[in-house]
Amino acid sequence: MLHLQSETSSRWLEQVDAHLEEILIDHAHCEKKAAGTAMNLMFAYVEDEELCSEMKRIVEEELDHFEQVREILKERGIRFRRLKPSSYGRRLHEHIRKLEPDRAVDRLLVAGLIEARSCERFDLLRRHLAGKDPFLASFYDSLFESEARHHSTYVELAKHFRPAKCVLERLDELSAAEAAIIAEGDPVPRVHS
Amino acid sequence: MLHLQSETSSRWLEQVDAHLEEILIDHAHCEKKAAGTAMNLMFAYVEDEELCSEMKRIVEEELDHFEQVREILKERGIRFRRLKPSSYGRRLHEHIRKLEPDRAVDRLLVAGLIEARSCERFDLLRRHLAGKDPFLASFYDSLFESEARHHSTYVELAKHFRPAKCVLERLDELSAAEAAIIAEGDPVPRVHS
Repeated sequence: MLHLQSETSSRWLEQVDAHLEEILIDHAHCEKKAAGTAMNLMFAYVEDEELCSEMKRIVEEELDHFEQVREILKERGIRFRRLKPSSYGRRLHEHIRKLEPDRAVDRLLVAGLIEARSCERFDLLRRHLAGKDPFLASFYDSLFESEARHHSTYVELAKHFRPAKCVLERLDELSAAEAAIIAEGDPVPRVHS
Repeated sequence: MLHLQSETSSRWLEQVDAHLEEILIDHAHCEKKAAGTAMNLMFAYVEDEELCSEMKRIVEEELDHFEQVREILKERGIRFRRLKPSSYGRRLHEHIRKLEPDRAVDRLLVAGLIEARSCERFDLLRRHLAGKDPFLASFYDSLFESEARHHSTYVELAKHFRPAKCVLERLDELSAAEAAIIAEGDPVPRVHS
C-alpha cells in the first residue's frame, strides 16, 4: 500500500536511540516542509479544484503536526533550532522530470514517497518506543494513519496528469530510487537518514 | 486602526461594476497569495514560536477564504483561471529592506498593509453590493473582521524584531508608500487596482 521497496534497517533505530532529541527537532522541520510542499503544489496546479482542496487539507494537517511536535519539544525542554537537513529530500527531488505533465506526476509521487517513508518509520518508532517512552510512542501512533492517507492522496492526484498505468510505472521507478537513497543512509541523525 | 493613509476612490468601484467576475477571480488568487505569504514568514522566522502559531492560524483562515471564493465562482459558473496580478504587491514589496531585522519588520508590515487595504475595500464592497448582490455583500461582510485582525497581528509581530516606536514609524513610511501606489491605480481590474 505504501509502494516502498525496502524496509528501514536497524541502523536507523540506533541513530534514534543515540540522538532522539535531534530526530524530534528534525521531525518538526519535516512537518513544516510537508506543509510547504502541499502549498507549493496548490500554487503550481491551482486550476485543479480537487488537487487544491486536498492540498488545503494536507497543509492544515501538517501544520497541526508541526505545532504538536513543537509542543513536545517545549515540554521536554528541547530548544527548537535550525538543522542541516539530511540529503534525502534533495536527492529524491533530483529525479523530478522538467517538462509538464511529467513534472506534476513526479512532484506528486515524490511527495507521496516521502509520506510513505515517514509512515513506515513512524510505525517502527511507535513499536520501538512503546516500552521506553509510551507518550512518544502513542504520538507516533496518532500520526501513522494520516501519513498513509497522504501517500494515497498524492498517488491518486498524479493520475489527474497521466493515465493510471503510467503513474504506477513511474511510481515503481521513483520508489526504487527512494530505496537506493535510504539504503545509503546519512551520517546525520534525521527522520529520513 | 488600519493605518491606511488614503481611502479608495470611486474609480475603483467603477472597475468593480464593469468587471466583477475578474475581481472575484483575482480575489481567490489574493487569498491564496495571503496564505503563501504567511507560510513563507513562518519558514523565515521559524524559531519565533508565537509568530509560527499566528502564521498557522492565518494560513488556515486564508485557505478557507480561498475555498469559499472558489465555491462562489463555481456557483456562478465563472471559470477560475490564472490572471496577471496588479502591480500593487510587487511595488509594495520593493520597499522591503534587505538586512535583518529590518527585513522581518518590513515583510510583516507589508503583509499587514495588504490586509488593511483588503479590509478597507471589503468594507466598501459590502456596502456597495448590499442592494444589487446581497449574497456577495454578506460574504464580504464575513471577511471584513478577519482582515482587520490579520493587520493587527502582523503589526504586533513586527515588534518582536524592533522596538514598538521604530515599528510604528516604519509603518507610517510604508503606509505612505502604499497610499501613493493605490492613488496611481492600475488599468487592470483587481482587488488592489
